[in-house]
Amino acid sequence: MRNTIGNNLSVTLFGESHGEMIGAVIDGMTPGVAVDTDYIRRSLEKRRPSGKISTPRVEADEFNIVSGVIDGKTTGTPITILIKNTNTKSADYSKLFDTPRPSHADFAAECKYHGFQDRRGGGHFSGRITAALVAAGALIQSALEKAGIYIGTHIKELRGTSDIDFTDYSEDIKRLRNSSFPTLTEATEEKMRSLIEKTAKEGDSVGGILETAVIGLPAGVGEPWFDTVESCLAHILFSVPAIKGVEFGAGFAFADMTGSEANDPFVTDGERIYTETNNNGGINGGITNGMPLIFRCAVKPTPSIFKAQRTVSLSEMKNTELSLTGRHDPAIIHRAAVVIDSVTALTLADLLLTRYGTDWLYVEK
Amino acid sequence: MRNTIGNNLSVTLFGESHGEMIGAVIDGMTPGVAVDTDYIRRSLEKRRPSGKISTPRVEADEFNIVSGVIDGKTTGTPITILIKNTNTKSADYSKLFDTPRPSHADFAAECKYHGFQDRRGGGHFSGRITAALVAAGALIQSALEKAGIYIGTHIKELRGTSDIDFTDYSEDIKRLRNSSFPTLTEATEEKMRSLIEKTAKEGDSVGGILETAVIGLPAGVGEPWFDTVESCLAHILFSVPAIKGVEFGAGFAFADMTGSEANDPFVTDGERIYTETNNNGGINGGITNGMPLIFRCAVKPTPSIFKAQRTVSLSEMKNTELSLTGRHDPAIIHRAAVVIDSVTALTLADLLLTRYGTDWLYVEK
Amino acid sequence: MRNTIGNNLSVTLFGESHGEMIGAVIDGMTPGVAVDTDYIRRSLEKRRPSGKISTPRVEADEFNIVSGVIDGKTTGTPITILIKNTNTKSADYSKLFDTPRPSHADFAAECKYHGFQDRRGGGHFSGRITAALVAAGALIQSALEKAGIYIGTHIKELRGTSDIDFTDYSEDIKRLRNSSFPTLTEATEEKMRSLIEKTAKEGDSVGGILETAVIGLPAGVGEPWFDTVESCLAHILFSVPAIKGVEFGAGFAFADMTGSEANDPFVTDGERIYTETNNNGGINGGITNGMPLIFRCAVKPTPSIFKAQRTVSLSEMKNTELSLTGRHDPAIIHRAAVVIDSVTALTLADLLLTRYGTDWLYVEK
Amino acid sequence: MRNTIGNNLSVTLFGESHGEMIGAVIDGMTPGVAVDTDYIRRSLEKRRPSGKISTPRVEADEFNIVSGVIDGKTTGTPITILIKNTNTKSADYSKLFDTPRPSHADFAAECKYHGFQDRRGGGHFSGRITAALVAAGALIQSALEKAGIYIGTHIKELRGTSDIDFTDYSEDIKRLRNSSFPTLTEATEEKMRSLIEKTAKEGDSVGGILETAVIGLPAGVGEPWFDTVESCLAHILFSVPAIKGVEFGAGFAFADMTGSEANDPFVTDGERIYTETNNNGGINGGITNGMPLIFRCAVKPTPSIFKAQRTVSLSEMKNTELSLTGRHDPAIIHRAAVVIDSVTALTLADLLLTRYGTDWLYVEK
Repeated sequence: MRNTIGNNLSVTLFGESHGEMIGAVIDGMTPGVAVDTDYIRRSLEKRRPSGKISTPRVEADEFNIVSGVIDGKTTGTPITILIKNTNTKSADYSKLFDTPRPSHADFAAECKYHGFQDRRGGGHFSGRITAALVAAGALIQSALEKAGIYIGTHIKELRGTSDIDFTDYSEDIKRLRNSSFPTLTEATEEKMRSLIEKTAKEGDSVGGILETAVIGLPAGVGEPWFDTVESCLAHILFSVPAIKGVEFGAGFAFADMTGSEANDPFVTDGERIYTETNNNGGINGGITNGMPLIFRCAVKPTPSIFKAQRTVSLSEMKNTELSLTGRHDPAIIHRAAVVIDSVTALTLADLLLTRYGTDWLYVEK
Repeated sequence: MRNTIGNNLSVTLFGESHGEMIGAVIDGMTPGVAVDTDYIRRSLEKRRPSGKISTPRVEADEFNIVSGVIDGKTTGTPITILIKNTNTKSADYSKLFDTPRPSHADFAAECKYHGFQDRRGGGHFSGRITAALVAAGALIQSALEKAGIYIGTHIKELRGTSDIDFTDYSEDIKRLRNSSFPTLTEATEEKMRSLIEKTAKEGDSVGGILETAVIGLPAGVGEPWFDTVESCLAHILFSVPAIKGVEFGAGFAFADMTGSEANDPFVTDGERIYTETNNNGGINGGITNGMPLIFRCAVKPTPSIFKAQRTVSLSEMKNTELSLTGRHDPAIIHRAAVVIDSVTALTLADLLLTRYGTDWLYVEK
Repeated sequence: MRNTIGNNLSVTLFGESHGEMIGAVIDGMTPGVAVDTDYIRRSLEKRRPSGKISTPRVEADEFNIVSGVIDGKTTGTPITILIKNTNTKSADYSKLFDTPRPSHADFAAECKYHGFQDRRGGGHFSGRITAALVAAGALIQSALEKAGIYIGTHIKELRGTSDIDFTDYSEDIKRLRNSSFPTLTEATEEKMRSLIEKTAKEGDSVGGILETAVIGLPAGVGEPWFDTVESCLAHILFSVPAIKGVEFGAGFAFADMTGSEANDPFVTDGERIYTETNNNGGINGGITNGMPLIFRCAVKPTPSIFKAQRTVSLSEMKNTELSLTGRHDPAIIHRAAVVIDSVTALTLADLLLTRYGTDWLYVEK
Repeated sequence: MRNTIGNNLSVTLFGESHGEMIGAVIDGMTPGVAVDTDYIRRSLEKRRPSGKISTPRVEADEFNIVSGVIDGKTTGTPITILIKNTNTKSADYSKLFDTPRPSHADFAAECKYHGFQDRRGGGHFSGRITAALVAAGALIQSALEKAGIYIGTHIKELRGTSDIDFTDYSEDIKRLRNSSFPTLTEATEEKMRSLIEKTAKEGDSVGGILETAVIGLPAGVGEPWFDTVESCLAHILFSVPAIKGVEFGAGFAFADMTGSEANDPFVTDGERIYTETNNNGGINGGITNGMPLIFRCAVKPTPSIFKAQRTVSLSEMKNTELSLTGRHDPAIIHRAAVVIDSVTALTLADLLLTRYGTDWLYVEK
């Protein structure tokens, strides 16, 4: 469905980077759920560029919920969130129209939309659109927290530097929620910040690996064959710009393991059943097994760099060079963590409402 | 939609490992397309266990197309393919009902279906079901070939041994199509075969990494935001049992690259535009850019191993040990390659028919 | 989705009138529900032609459930029902291929499928396919009955003769369930039977109006704006061959009423709230209000008649006459009643599972 | 999908009667299509109340296209249209919260949304929302006209008064497009206007029957079994508030016809094939046959009337009376005609893009 995703809880995305506004419509939300606008605001804050490690284009990201919420509670009908674009400088981009930026959507979009697409600042394919996705996802994520389900994402790897693994999921997720840079230790934050600054000075950019944990999910969620937890999450994760890889549990590391090393033994303490290891990342047969859900996303380096790059002039059909000016991020990975949280919240809530019915998220009696 | 996937070309899967039959319904196929039953037969052959590196349970996999094809051509209405299960020994599995197999769907399915699921041989969650998916996908794949689109998958890595990279896509895909073991060289085949045999002797199992290439795709295919080529492919790829990771182009290797290393420069020879490198795997902004589509899947080791494993007795709610007997694969990765080809064909054909209309696959005038 | 309908409970239809078999796949069914094969058999019996008022082509309609049911209970995974075509005489139809039958799908299908469609006996557009729909719907309908929801359809009007209105819904529906001809009185049955016989002797055919009642539905079911009870029911009802009109409650009679005549006053007995009249047929704003759900379907006369008709020879592109021989129904309305019951069951169960979650239909604890 | 409808061209609706704004998102539109804002404006004009036969609540209905259009042309990405609510007097409705209005959504919505729905002015279930639907539909309808497909709707019947039948479709549709009251003759307009005025003076309301014609559709459009032209149109038509019946061609009149009277003979003039009569309303087997598409909708009388009505006090659970004050329409049928045009345009464009691909609507080269 192109710009709408989800079955029982769906989200529709719209807008362009340099248009009047961007927005999202959430449909299928349980009625009566309190909307935590502070939570949404803080999530948008995490996505917003800031300091030396981001683009100087900073948007206020003031969001306006224009339908589906009354007296601070969801009505059960579509929730529409609008975010105005205020800080647009389209002049910066005029030159790019003829010379597609390497590794950007420019050229592929030209082939698909025949030049009618909004090309200013990446238009509908800009990372800017993720602000609307974060607003929508944060609304859902805060509702999931009331149901005991917590989501957190940190930068696991960035240009050779690794963050520690999750150890105490609950504490780690709380920490991530309250920090402005998504790592599990301050030491990693400092190293990664300076790596990004260094890269920016080189006129270059970096990517990395994001790792996400979800705790509190009941066992038995997921709709095989095709709407498994992995399939549904991967679908939305790969829609996030710059994501080029997704792995669950041990993921690609399974390639070098044998079954006896890889299998997660079931154990019981007499009350509940769990697995000793969690190489499967909380999912067996596409269905949750009650263990923490763990996955990682590969983020490619931001394609807009200041270094000169080779490209083609479409009008003249000849090779040329492109030197970007304007405002660009040397890294978006630290800003992308909350986007991953958000789309994870949307997908899991959809599967939970499918399983338990439309009223399931109503927890405040 | 659970067991139905696709928008304009969809497939519905049904059946259980030890039931009477399994099958698939393909809907939305262009009318008038010749059905290459030999192609389907050869694809099923590739999936079928054989020799020392597979389970001794060998099915004839005779398929029967009972609707949607007349005089060897598609009618445009649903195509139903049935495959009987002939070689079922349910007795072998009776013991497993109480002791879920580690890393299998058993326990998660128990939580979801409350014990009403068909537990014989993994039931609906068995790899056996992929035979129906291969039959459906092969029917589509042979039609795509007539439209000039070719798909091939090889084992890139298996327990420390790597296959070479694709070099001449067209030749490599032709080779893969005609060989019984999916590697690009004979040397790799021998090494991997003996690694699997060795693992089998240890009562253990292996996984690995599959790499897929698609050539001949027009630029401009894919339906962002959410139905990008990457999203749609990942959705169906993660539905295939044992797949725990998917990456496009450089994938997780992007984590250590800078933008200037990662970006694919556009170049032209005056006639067509292409990229010098292909780190993006043929996709920019979720849309094909005309370059070969490249992705890799992480395959976890087959969870059914003969070595003793710890698990829980559900009825007694206590820890116990499980030693599997019966018939199990030490590896399924070589059999999974054609499954990946098949689901890739289904997904790409769906996106192509979305873009170009229902009659697009009719190429034999 | 063409041949798949439903969101949380879906059905996929396949097969052709003169192919090897027809069938249906039901997906999303609650696990653990007892399958009442007798109920399915009796429903198929109601659809089957019999006596002087039907085509002499009589099929055994033996159905085979090949997946999704074990030990007589649903597993929660796809349920596949196959019905063989045994009594096919394709020779009868050969002549029609060049001369489309007036008011049949023949010509429109030719335009859509370019002549590749299966044209024998109407192929995929034959009323024959409704046998698979009835089998699927009956499986669901018997489960709804266990949840206290009952559905019944009678012939309200046939060539000038009217049946009485529903009076005691519960008794009337029980009567319809147990009788071989769907009217609320014996007197109407006799009149209608002889009208059909008379029409048959004239080499002609009749249609009529079917009226359906559903009792036991909870208030609050339906998913506006677009997936209202009326929208979802009308969608599937208009898929049934020969249905050309659908109205809920007073329907077209609203045209001559004023608001004060038409509105249904709410009243209470102190315990429950109901409406004094039921002009809205149990639905307000697209959502059930707890009153009986009432709707009517207009059935056009069977288009296959023995009287000579004008048509066009497609090969010669000239006007000609067509005199059908072979086996044709002078009326299908009495056989269509159970088809309406079946599709109603599928649609309502889908909306109920959407609202209350996947396990809702499990009532036998 | 609740508030999103359509497969390859979809529309998502949001907003409440007394909220800040209402709106629609159109997704899947062909890129490069000129957007005729005048056409949209005139369509909204037709829906807007005016004079003695409508509610005194008149909205400016100024619409704002905030995404998906640049330089007056569609981009191919989501088109978002916002319409502010300016003339809201919520005080008028406060009393209704405890006493559901007969035949309104109030009570059913209470059951579904547990009182959390926006109850002001009918909230999300208000006819007000159709303004957004009209804006979206008009954008598509004007594009269909450039492809030679024209849609027109007139009031066929209103409280005993009938309009004439369509005679010259092309001229009649042009007339309807340019007149402020949807009838085919001035004489009918006068009679119907005075009937509505008379009803208004009585403190009552009226409904009626709308008849729609579509010309220029190619043969072969529609996606059986389930996504037939009739099914898809009926689905969206029944979503329009107050629609309680839909019939195609002869519809319910088929009940009294025999096959020989009802069947539409095929004839040819040597160049094209058409039918002599059009009892099937341009559709055979759910697929267009190239004849004008004809259908009728039953519109129930507006439920908000000034006459005293019986209802229940929900808080006291006892019978009471309700006398509405405020602003209400004595009839909405004349305003609903353009709503029917709009939803028809959306549905047909969806089926056309499904058949011919995403670029089909691009006609201005």
